[in-house]
Amino acid sequence: MYVYVYRHRVRYRECDPMGVVYHTHYLDYFEAARTEALRELGLPYRELEEAGIIMPVVDLCVQYKRPARYDDLLEIKAIFEEMPRMRATIQYEVMRAGEATVLTTGQVTLCWVDTTRNRPIPAPPAIIEVFRRVLPEQAA
Amino acid sequence: MYVYVYRHRVRYRECDPMGVVYHTHYLDYFEAARTEALRELGLPYRELEEAGIIMPVVDLCVQYKRPARYDDLLEIKAIFEEMPRMRATIQYEVMRAGEATVLTTGQVTLCWVDTTRNRPIPAPPAIIEVFRRVLPEQAA
Amino acid sequence: MYVYVYRHRVRYRECDPMGVVYHTHYLDYFEAARTEALRELGLPYRELEEAGIIMPVVDLCVQYKRPARYDDLLEIKAIFEEMPRMRATIQYEVMRAGEATVLTTGQVTLCWVDTTRNRPIPAPPAIIEVFRRVLPEQAA
Amino acid sequence: MYVYVYRHRVRYRECDPMGVVYHTHYLDYFEAARTEALRELGLPYRELEEAGIIMPVVDLCVQYKRPARYDDLLEIKAIFEEMPRMRATIQYEVMRAGEATVLTTGQVTLCWVDTTRNRPIPAPPAIIEVFRRVLPEQAA
Repeated sequence: MYVYVYRHRVRYRECDPMGVVYHTHYLDYFEAARTEALRELGLPYRELEEAGIIMPVVDLCVQYKRPARYDDLLEIKAIFEEMPRMRATIQYEVMRAGEATVLTTGQVTLCWVDTTRNRPIPAPPAIIEVFRRVLPEQAA
Repeated sequence: MYVYVYRHRVRYRECDPMGVVYHTHYLDYFEAARTEALRELGLPYRELEEAGIIMPVVDLCVQYKRPARYDDLLEIKAIFEEMPRMRATIQYEVMRAGEATVLTTGQVTLCWVDTTRNRPIPAPPAIIEVFRRVLPEQAA
Repeated sequence: MYVYVYRHRVRYRECDPMGVVYHTHYLDYFEAARTEALRELGLPYRELEEAGIIMPVVDLCVQYKRPARYDDLLEIKAIFEEMPRMRATIQYEVMRAGEATVLTTGQVTLCWVDTTRNRPIPAPPAIIEVFRRVLPEQAA
Repeated sequence: MYVYVYRHRVRYRECDPMGVVYHTHYLDYFEAARTEALRELGLPYRELEEAGIIMPVVDLCVQYKRPARYDDLLEIKAIFEEMPRMRATIQYEVMRAGEATVLTTGQVTLCWVDTTRNRPIPAPPAIIEVFRRVLPEQAA
């Protein structure tokens, strides 16, 4: 299992009249967390795209347990558990920095598309290599 | 089963560098569809809120099958199938106006919270009444 | 002068903890209003883009006078006053439907860029023609 | 003059089909920059709000000179030049980290409102004090 922790300060524009983070913004937090996780692993998404590969979202689920509030400093964990094949699923957990209570959890599944042929492809070698490094027990 | 159809024109700001609707915006479409469905049924959400009741999102899932593009005229169906108790789940289907192919599906579950006591409550009578009218087979 | 009126229902996600529309969303309203104005005039922006012409925003100003609230039905006026040359400026006024009080005003200036050469160009003939029709006093 | 530099990585959701940052998102960058500037100066906006004071935007202008792209690391400068009275205007400049070319400039004017009486008030003492410290030449 590989866990990357992304920090985000809740902005005013993200909060609704209930005074809490509006539910759609957690998906933006997830995007930022997986992008920074891939960068940390040496694989900026921009490079993938320049190589003619995009990663559209296939499906997602989010579970909202407790609200986050304006100006909260959040930690968004992007959790990589499985070697990707045609798809990759990344888990997420959101909590306040320094606190153990999980506010929100989520799962986002992505696939790979070759933009020149506009067709789905299996996880490209650069991705497989990155996952092998951080999930050695599954790479055997 | 009650189905409300909400129409939305895809805006430039909603499209990403792939030229398609960025995945988070479907949740905005779902919100608009359920709000207009409730209004059509005689129950503007603003009135609920003024009565001290809010409806936070508890969980949601979205399945992305085919992309929508800039300037597409979309139909978002909000589908009510079950009588609500402590929670209400609404289904969604997105297609282009005049086409049968489903682009995206989703499910959003909401609950009710009494804002004065800040506690979850069962579906309030006004909501039950509205659902009874449109789901007569379940109201018996 | 040509005035197009676009209607928009304020969404929950557009309102902030003050209970009013967060200031950036007016720019989205302006975009929707000018897009629908161009469509009404027979010139969908999508067609321009397919012809290799884009219209980036050059500058903008917004004046916030009074707040709009959740569920308000707004009228956004897109006001065309001048024949475009290298740039086109469109004025905006926002009010509640059926009310005379102006809540917000704005000005957005756009230019034209030929995407094949990536260079600014004067207003293309299709645009000039459209403006001539609605601003006959300036077309002489 | 006091300058605070806020860093932001451009996200995929912020880029449009032209492959550049959609124009409205710069206003979000400005909000984040002024919020962090105030925090740095010892005055979190959340504390102001808890003291019954809010800072609505009165007007703003933005000048777009050159585009920013996906994954660019931006520096957003929030520039404080004048002692506030009934209003405060903050200037902004956006550039890529490590580059001197200004991509975007802006000006946002805010005022203060006492939420209990719902009326505009002059800059509260805590704000005046903060500005005095960083603009000593004007505090005399």
